[in-house]
Amino acid sequence: MKIITVSREFGSGGREIGKRLADELGFAYYDREIVSAIAEKTSLDEGYIERTLDSSILNQVYPVTFSRTFAFSYHNIANATNLLAKQHQVVRELSQKGDCVIVGRSADALLSDLNPFKLFVYADMQSKIDRCKKRAEEGENFTDKEYKKKIEKIDKARAENHDFVSSYAWGDMKNYDLCINTTNIDIKAIVPKLAEYIKTIY
Amino acid sequence: MKIITVSREFGSGGREIGKRLADELGFAYYDREIVSAIAEKTSLDEGYIERTLDSSILNQVYPVTFSRTFAFSYHNIANATNLLAKQHQVVRELSQKGDCVIVGRSADALLSDLNPFKLFVYADMQSKIDRCKKRAEEGENFTDKEYKKKIEKIDKARAENHDFVSSYAWGDMKNYDLCINTTNIDIKAIVPKLAEYIKTIY
Repeated sequence: MKIITVSREFGSGGREIGKRLADELGFAYYDREIVSAIAEKTSLDEGYIERTLDSSILNQVYPVTFSRTFAFSYHNIANATNLLAKQHQVVRELSQKGDCVIVGRSADALLSDLNPFKLFVYADMQSKIDRCKKRAEEGENFTDKEYKKKIEKIDKARAENHDFVSSYAWGDMKNYDLCINTTNIDIKAIVPKLAEYIKTIY
Repeated sequence: MKIITVSREFGSGGREIGKRLADELGFAYYDREIVSAIAEKTSLDEGYIERTLDSSILNQVYPVTFSRTFAFSYHNIANATNLLAKQHQVVRELSQKGDCVIVGRSADALLSDLNPFKLFVYADMQSKIDRCKKRAEEGENFTDKEYKKKIEKIDKARAENHDFVSSYAWGDMKNYDLCINTTNIDIKAIVPKLAEYIKTIY
């Protein structure tokens, strides 16, 4: 069974690389499917699951404010850790169905015993801001500074949640097989070459 | 003019990747040629030049011991900075002769205004030790621990000397276009794929 995990900075085009790579290789592609599968298992709302899993777990375990009751904070911890466990279960189940590409969800760490090929995708800040702008929903009108803040916040949560289930750090190159800088590159054009590279060694 | 710079951890196979990539692309390859050209310009011994450039410049500027005279330490600084300046000159001259691959020598930083394609090659420690062992000269009989120490010392000097002439850090992925982990991979097999990847975007 071959598993390619794609870890990525927000706005770097990692999801696009993952999707195109899966198509190129004829592998299954898992991204939002994971959230849907957790929703099925838990009967929780997909939006709620996504918000909880994509927020920093540490912030939920150690709430910044203690003005609310302990019960509320405990409730958060229980939910977040329960969802993390479900995520692990779902990621593992999907990985056993056949060759696949999994984007995010700390799959590189959760499946490390299965020896996945681990990609990390990154880009410089302006390039990430520009990509976010291009993909902005109608009515979304952030300044560059606001996008930068959003990108940094999301990546911080990704790093914290990854490191919560892993012995190594998110974004530290030595933990990946290949790290791709997408600044100024045509993702569509490079994916076939990337697929060839991976096929040669994995 | 196309310039590919290869920065690499000691023992990771970066030099082999650089040489094979140059052959694959039909580019000139510069590595020891740089030391020879500096020797010609300065009438200094190649071994001396290499030792000076490959030792930490910072250690030469701030000598650990002050037991020798200031004149001696000043002499070292003057030699080291003079050689760095000559290295810059030689790297630039070579880069203007035509498409090329340059291994090491902080060429990524020295030529950053020429927009080179910047590769970083790395591997896990055991893999680097094994590679060093395979390439050991006859009679060389280091333990793993000794190889590890040697690798760390050389990489520390590379990082310091790079950062002496650069605004960004050696080995920090965001400063490279592609970072390749060579742990357990067949370099000969991946270079043609790598060449295709680079040709597509550079």
